[in-house]
Amino acid sequence: MSVPTSGPAGPVSFQTDPQRYRHWKLDLDGEIAYLRLDVDEAGGLVPGYELKMNSYDLGVDIELYDATQRLRFEHPEVRAVVLTSGKDRNFCAGANIRMLAQSSHPWKVNFCKFTNETRNAIEDATANSGQTYLAALNGTAAGGGYELALACERILLIDDNSSVVSLPEVPLLGVLPGTGGLTRVTDKRRVRKDRADVFATRAEGVRGRQAVEWRLVDEVIPKRSWDEKVAERAAEAAARSSRPTGARGITLPPLAPEHGEDEIRYRHVHARLDRARGLVEITVHGPDGPPPKTVAGMHEQGAEFWALAMTRELDDLILWLRTNELELGTWVIRTRGNAADALAFERLLAEHGRDDWLAVEVRHYFKRVLKRLDVTSRSLVALIEPGSCFAGALLELALACDRQYMLDGVLDSDEEGQEPAQVVLSESNFGAFPMSNGLSRLGSRCYGDDDYLAKLRQETGHWLAAAEAAELGLVTEAYDDIDWDDEIRIMLEERASLSPDALTGMEANHRFVGPETMESRIFSRLTAWQNWIFIRPNASGPEGALRRYGTGRRADFDRKRV
Amino acid sequence: MSVPTSGPAGPVSFQTDPQRYRHWKLDLDGEIAYLRLDVDEAGGLVPGYELKMNSYDLGVDIELYDATQRLRFEHPEVRAVVLTSGKDRNFCAGANIRMLAQSSHPWKVNFCKFTNETRNAIEDATANSGQTYLAALNGTAAGGGYELALACERILLIDDNSSVVSLPEVPLLGVLPGTGGLTRVTDKRRVRKDRADVFATRAEGVRGRQAVEWRLVDEVIPKRSWDEKVAERAAEAAARSSRPTGARGITLPPLAPEHGEDEIRYRHVHARLDRARGLVEITVHGPDGPPPKTVAGMHEQGAEFWALAMTRELDDLILWLRTNELELGTWVIRTRGNAADALAFERLLAEHGRDDWLAVEVRHYFKRVLKRLDVTSRSLVALIEPGSCFAGALLELALACDRQYMLDGVLDSDEEGQEPAQVVLSESNFGAFPMSNGLSRLGSRCYGDDDYLAKLRQETGHWLAAAEAAELGLVTEAYDDIDWDDEIRIMLEERASLSPDALTGMEANHRFVGPETMESRIFSRLTAWQNWIFIRPNASGPEGALRRYGTGRRADFDRKRV
Repeated sequence: MSVPTSGPAGPVSFQTDPQRYRHWKLDLDGEIAYLRLDVDEAGGLVPGYELKMNSYDLGVDIELYDATQRLRFEHPEVRAVVLTSGKDRNFCAGANIRMLAQSSHPWKVNFCKFTNETRNAIEDATANSGQTYLAALNGTAAGGGYELALACERILLIDDNSSVVSLPEVPLLGVLPGTGGLTRVTDKRRVRKDRADVFATRAEGVRGRQAVEWRLVDEVIPKRSWDEKVAERAAEAAARSSRPTGARGITLPPLAPEHGEDEIRYRHVHARLDRARGLVEITVHGPDGPPPKTVAGMHEQGAEFWALAMTRELDDLILWLRTNELELGTWVIRTRGNAADALAFERLLAEHGRDDWLAVEVRHYFKRVLKRLDVTSRSLVALIEPGSCFAGALLELALACDRQYMLDGVLDSDEEGQEPAQVVLSESNFGAFPMSNGLSRLGSRCYGDDDYLAKLRQETGHWLAAAEAAELGLVTEAYDDIDWDDEIRIMLEERASLSPDALTGMEANHRFVGPETMESRIFSRLTAWQNWIFIRPNASGPEGALRRYGTGRRADFDRKRV
Repeated sequence: MSVPTSGPAGPVSFQTDPQRYRHWKLDLDGEIAYLRLDVDEAGGLVPGYELKMNSYDLGVDIELYDATQRLRFEHPEVRAVVLTSGKDRNFCAGANIRMLAQSSHPWKVNFCKFTNETRNAIEDATANSGQTYLAALNGTAAGGGYELALACERILLIDDNSSVVSLPEVPLLGVLPGTGGLTRVTDKRRVRKDRADVFATRAEGVRGRQAVEWRLVDEVIPKRSWDEKVAERAAEAAARSSRPTGARGITLPPLAPEHGEDEIRYRHVHARLDRARGLVEITVHGPDGPPPKTVAGMHEQGAEFWALAMTRELDDLILWLRTNELELGTWVIRTRGNAADALAFERLLAEHGRDDWLAVEVRHYFKRVLKRLDVTSRSLVALIEPGSCFAGALLELALACDRQYMLDGVLDSDEEGQEPAQVVLSESNFGAFPMSNGLSRLGSRCYGDDDYLAKLRQETGHWLAAAEAAELGLVTEAYDDIDWDDEIRIMLEERASLSPDALTGMEANHRFVGPETMESRIFSRLTAWQNWIFIRPNASGPEGALRRYGTGRRADFDRKRV
């Protein structure tokens, strides 16, 4: 493919904070927050394009992600979030086309994945945190701009005879709406599907009464009463919120990972980059000791609370590696630490999983980070060794992997007195951290086999050695100390020898078995079609629609239907 | 892409019969049929490859499809079908690799679609016709060979210390198993997903006890008792069949469409090919008169019975157009005839939908042909005009389309005394012809909107004019006679101007809303990933795995993960 592959000058960091935002303004007004998109045209992450028309690139979306996270942890008093634009008559024009046209295929795909995750996080906040997002479209919402609105619970559109909602990707760019638009229009908004077809091929969009009749928006509001009505709707949403009153947020300080030549070091998470073997060795460390005795203690620790700190670091590492380390195709995941302490943290969170907002947030955040792993296009392998703490919630890290290997015994190189590895199931493995298909990772592991799940349930709380874990089907293989090093080395070499594309497709099929949800379909179906379309010459070739957009020349299509 | 695009010398026909089979032997033994794959290496459909190792190409699969159809209509006495090989120690090596390597992208994709439909038809016969398929693997079943076995209800593997089952696509070819392998292994066979991962990356496959333990096969049978045990299992399956005894089949004579330069003419189905506008105008004709008064009359008419004859012709036309007319991207679908007669046929079939095997088969066949439309990568537009008969089952043809347009009034060009078009719902529109997502087309049309469905149910049996049909949401637009020609012309021109790839992806997303089944996921997820992988240089590039297979040189992969 002759697509240019310009990228950012250096690696991309996902760390930011409201003081540093260039594109968003977060205004807090008691229980209502206003999140205003006001893109700095000159603030693109990569040279070569201007962010005109309130369009976005990865940098804009990194700020949005940061804002959604801070609203949940730093501003528990917020019960409704109004997503609107700081520009007149233009809500958002979606992903910047020049940026897409100049981006490499992996960049486009990774960008879409991250933006999808952030839209899902908006729905997750609405569903699980009592922070209801409303889209207040004070101007046209096109493409990704409308998809951002679709992630909100309610869509308000200004009635000014010019502002429309539209999905112009197919007619103008020859690609699909990339952040769930097609799926949410039919499955969430329940738009009749022939109308969905008309809508997605009509570049000029739909406005006014028709937009309401087709269910594309919930309400059109005259310009003169706009501010007042928006505030009214936000107040109504806030009034319905389950969010506790009087909650005080915690502060999320910047993460400051140390980047060495071949390692990335956080407080609780460590990654060793092995470029020769094309892999990353990730180690997640358990807590340094037992948890605080009370939730008050947890609130006092705030972002230092191990479960939260570890989750933030893991989240950041996943995003970093996905974006900046494309050739490290296998992630080897280990844990180290005291399993009993890790389980004690989990108990504290579970005990207050209904009555304490922070405990709720920590669990949902870990859930979202596990989901990031699920949709990560890297081979994931868990190594369960002496000194590890794959217990309860941390066992989910292993279950998110494509394979799990457990050492039966200890190695000469292990610390003196080291005990063989054990794993332990907790109640949380049976539904606290659902995958995007709505099943637990154990429920997905052996889909439809109720006996398997029932047997595992009986083992909850038991410390399981390698032979037992293998017998129960919790690990792929258990190897003894004599075979371990060779077997693991060969397995990793074999994996690295396979086609990266075939692995991506295979893993995306295996990881999500059984039922599907809107969310899983966005990742598994829409994304797969989009990936295909992105590399077809009709989109990305020199005469393709994506490349010709804005040149005044129409795309020249190969008419063969595939 | 620098992939060669060699194809067959002329257009591909899907008409065949057992006397002409080159690759399959159909042996009937009372209630058991043996379907033996014995590929003629020199019998490839396209020059350039030999069908070694009992591998298949489209020609081999066309015969398999023909056999599955004849078993249902010509041999209702058959209650179990043993799918086995006529060659020693080799069941089937799957799709021929040289064929794949030399094929164009559209050819590969279309080939996979058709083979998937045939495997689904095997499962449909097992589920709905009391014809249970058993795979008797008397030798190795690799790749598509094992996927063929996966479509069967039961898999028996010979225990000869060498025969294995395998999915070597990922490790050997850098592509995915293309006919549902990944999906059926986890979702149908309930193989634990880490084992599914190991299995799909292990070129040498799995045999013997381990194949049973991993649930890849149901039973391994020693060579000495092979024939006897296979017969026993077939007899057991036959004994469980709901198939009536004493049923006498009907004969399916060859279809003989007349091919003109720009038309294809069957008895009840007509297609006009409009190359200038990139579209096909398909007209399905209703019955010539009322149906026979009794089912006995239907049996007497056999393949001449209108509902069956029309379904066969439509099936053949869809396959022909898909394979041979890639640049005709829009199919315009009309009906002509007497709606009351069409409904009378439907009533006859519905009245005997439980007690008459042929009535059952006709309905399921029409269901399968509608499903073919659903997964056809062409824009489908229904035009509902005076003289049409979109009633009940025939209305499904319109509902399968992406859009429906209805003329409100009559045109000057219409026959004198012509009445304006009407449509009519029957009970069959509410579940007799489910889509692959398990929903009716009306249920998919406005997913999750129970009010919509309830309202339509009340209209069952009412003749609905254009304004009513539009009001009820049965058609996309109703235009009067003054606007009709222009509106339709502009709509078709606009459709033809869009990117064929974006349309394929968009339609695949819109047509299947809401829930998913194993079948819908095979088409919507697996296929989309496979399409992507097929055109990636890592598979189809000059240094890709698919092109390098058998050359003795390893593929040279771009290691970037996408």
